[in-house]
Amino acid sequence: MSDKKVEKCGERCALQEILDVIGGKWSMSIIYALFSGKKRFSELERLIPGINTRMLVKELKNMEANGIITREVFATVPPTVEYTLTTKGEKLEASINELYKWGMEYVA
Amino acid sequence: MSDKKVEKCGERCALQEILDVIGGKWSMSIIYALFSGKKRFSELERLIPGINTRMLVKELKNMEANGIITREVFATVPPTVEYTLTTKGEKLEASINELYKWGMEYVA
Repeated sequence: MSDKKVEKCGERCALQEILDVIGGKWSMSIIYALFSGKKRFSELERLIPGINTRMLVKELKNMEANGIITREVFATVPPTVEYTLTTKGEKLEASINELYKWGMEYVA
Repeated sequence: MSDKKVEKCGERCALQEILDVIGGKWSMSIIYALFSGKKRFSELERLIPGINTRMLVKELKNMEANGIITREVFATVPPTVEYTLTTKGEKLEASINELYKWGMEYVA
């Protein structure tokens, strides 16, 4: 019996690591906003209702640290900052679409 | 432009409601453990490494309140309590499998 459990534990541990990456209160919404292409900070702030500047900064930093997005600064006046999904981030599209379908049926 | 935004806002708001339901630190692991069938409290505790009794009780209560699982008490001595996924909970299988595939490639 223990073989099965160790194997299952491995799967559950991975699920918890996944939640560490995408389970933040706003991260799925940010990822979703970026599926349609790179966005400036101010665009994200406008597109995600309910988020404030401090939280958006914090969540974007976490997501950058987790390799989900990249941050690019342009030397304009004032400086422009753009956020783009990495391949790792883009590959979440299937999962988030499935969650969204489920939510439309059972939550919304 | 605002039509598009309102529509997109609706989608993001739903994503946040979804996270309220399944974004708890342990809820995906519990759902995953229940995909293979109903489990007793003690089985869940054993199957989910790192969780403690208090957290498992709390998370199961939330999940019951959210209609993800049902709780059934049997009048044995000592009493037996079994947890089962509802249809709403079972329908998360596709999403969690997609997340799991993503995690295997990019996180684990």
